[in-house]
Amino acid sequence: MTAPELAVSTWFNTAAPLSLEGLRGRVVFLHAFQMLCPACVSHGLPQTQRVQNIFRETDLQVIGLHTVFEHHAAMGPEALKAFIHEYRLTFPIAVDQPSSEGPIPKTMERYGMRGTPTAIIIGRDGHVEYHRFGIEDDMVIGARLATLLAAPVPIDATTAQDTGCTQDGCVPSAGPISNSKAGS
Amino acid sequence: MTAPELAVSTWFNTAAPLSLEGLRGRVVFLHAFQMLCPACVSHGLPQTQRVQNIFRETDLQVIGLHTVFEHHAAMGPEALKAFIHEYRLTFPIAVDQPSSEGPIPKTMERYGMRGTPTAIIIGRDGHVEYHRFGIEDDMVIGARLATLLAAPVPIDATTAQDTGCTQDGCVPSAGPISNSKAGS
Amino acid sequence: MTAPELAVSTWFNTAAPLSLEGLRGRVVFLHAFQMLCPACVSHGLPQTQRVQNIFRETDLQVIGLHTVFEHHAAMGPEALKAFIHEYRLTFPIAVDQPSSEGPIPKTMERYGMRGTPTAIIIGRDGHVEYHRFGIEDDMVIGARLATLLAAPVPIDATTAQDTGCTQDGCVPSAGPISNSKAGS
Amino acid sequence: MTAPELAVSTWFNTAAPLSLEGLRGRVVFLHAFQMLCPACVSHGLPQTQRVQNIFRETDLQVIGLHTVFEHHAAMGPEALKAFIHEYRLTFPIAVDQPSSEGPIPKTMERYGMRGTPTAIIIGRDGHVEYHRFGIEDDMVIGARLATLLAAPVPIDATTAQDTGCTQDGCVPSAGPISNSKAGS
Repeated sequence: MTAPELAVSTWFNTAAPLSLEGLRGRVVFLHAFQMLCPACVSHGLPQTQRVQNIFRETDLQVIGLHTVFEHHAAMGPEALKAFIHEYRLTFPIAVDQPSSEGPIPKTMERYGMRGTPTAIIIGRDGHVEYHRFGIEDDMVIGARLATLLAAPVPIDATTAQDTGCTQDGCVPSAGPISNSKAGS
Repeated sequence: MTAPELAVSTWFNTAAPLSLEGLRGRVVFLHAFQMLCPACVSHGLPQTQRVQNIFRETDLQVIGLHTVFEHHAAMGPEALKAFIHEYRLTFPIAVDQPSSEGPIPKTMERYGMRGTPTAIIIGRDGHVEYHRFGIEDDMVIGARLATLLAAPVPIDATTAQDTGCTQDGCVPSAGPISNSKAGS
Repeated sequence: MTAPELAVSTWFNTAAPLSLEGLRGRVVFLHAFQMLCPACVSHGLPQTQRVQNIFRETDLQVIGLHTVFEHHAAMGPEALKAFIHEYRLTFPIAVDQPSSEGPIPKTMERYGMRGTPTAIIIGRDGHVEYHRFGIEDDMVIGARLATLLAAPVPIDATTAQDTGCTQDGCVPSAGPISNSKAGS
Repeated sequence: MTAPELAVSTWFNTAAPLSLEGLRGRVVFLHAFQMLCPACVSHGLPQTQRVQNIFRETDLQVIGLHTVFEHHAAMGPEALKAFIHEYRLTFPIAVDQPSSEGPIPKTMERYGMRGTPTAIIIGRDGHVEYHRFGIEDDMVIGARLATLLAAPVPIDATTAQDTGCTQDGCVPSAGPISNSKAGS
């Protein structure tokens, strides 16, 4: 399955918004969590921080996704900001867009996540290669990421990165310049 | 040092407010924490819950104290309520009264706490017998509590419990002494 | 139940043999283990070392008891000596005397232990106050020890300590009192 | 560096002896340990067992290597056999051949290992790709193994596996080539 695009209302720990389309060609580790979810705090987030540290010299992109589906008042962006600071999280973190139709936010809905913590790994071709709710061994995560990182970068990935536009916004790029770059 | 009275704005997990004066004659384990303090979440609160479970058949009183001294907006009573629910905490939890003079709440100030987590043990005679900032072994906590629980109940403790009046309010009681006190 | 005396073939980490009769008046923490028992190595022995460290300023006596009931060839005194060295165990350790009648050594048989690890706590009066097979919380162990340590030393305990004689040998002593006692 | 062949005096958990030459074309995870090495027991061996379980459907070969360099009397094959049984280790385990020249056994010497635990990973082409003394994250081990497993099997690996002869012995095979080789 092709990974649905992220629907994000706010980003932390990144100078510019990220999008899966803009990241095409790279492997993405997506960790869905809630700041008041005990298993996320004790297991999922420390594991995600280890992924960030251990794979820092690869082209893996780690993204935390705050998928609030309960206690919305207690887990707003201000609270999340304090949480990120206190837990020393250094990877980019996206706030999943609330839905107007119910408590499940949009990205969580698109991926059919059962709850938090959920780990999702997206391969270089943009497909979901791993999707798991709950707690997983570090060794399994390390192996799955390395296997996907060992795959060759798809031929059209560079082009996709140049545009970087998604339904949620665009990563700066500028038409003729990137065209001439690609064409030269 | 005689344990200063708690200054509490809100209670959770108790039908009626507690006070140290009302608890005179019993040993009290007081755990000061903040819901966004990592060492409290990973160590202090699980330890306090173990105290609650292991000493449930003694007359020990466990009290959690939410001493918010930073990120006040993110740790209000609504957020704490959700936190208590998600972490399945079953002991009485008091919200330390904010101070009008600075970020340190009143009880934290009275006890001269350095930060969170802090564990305080109060003996049957109302004196502070143990005060420690940071992480402590379960075995040490178990031993300190048992030693204090082995002490005889002071002769005047029953009287103190009967009145149950503190500067923060009164626990219902019915003698002429507390009436005259309240009425004067 | 009065704690049966230890039947010991070899001692480590002590200048002179110990005996429960010689220790009368003191609380004793007895940890029965085998060096090839996984739960002993991962849990029981580290816990016993914590007991030794945390209660070092009390009159508690910690004793490890190597109760070999299987793989006898692999767990002889030479192997145990290397094990004690590598695991940095500092409390006195006794080798339970093998039985001529079966694989269960003598002290293990006398106490009716189910297996290893087993923790036994003996009070100041020489009675078994706690006997548990398996894994126990540090907090429970700490509390049980402190409660028993808080008990007054029995009046006749000093005398018992003076003699220090048991069926397994005698701790040196030299007063007319113990002589007259032994002679009466 | 090409991985030196193993020098083995005894094998456990395998019907036939293994050799690196016979395993050419496959990735090998080699864990050097001693049964009385605390970090091996608490960390290295459980990690190796996780490698065995998690990669069981790949062609990875896990090998434990008992490299005794101290307390030789306490860690003979009989003791190791009991240890393997009690710790429920299921991967093949080789006893490193003692050296006539000193306490360091032969394979440990050939690899220049500093001590135990040591983890070594050998790639499909027979080269040492990873060599580390001490404790390593599961995630790193998982990633390194997966990266090497993702490499193509060398063209000549099948031939090497067919012969299966090493300086330590031969795995049964039946072609005239290996016969002539052994006979020459």
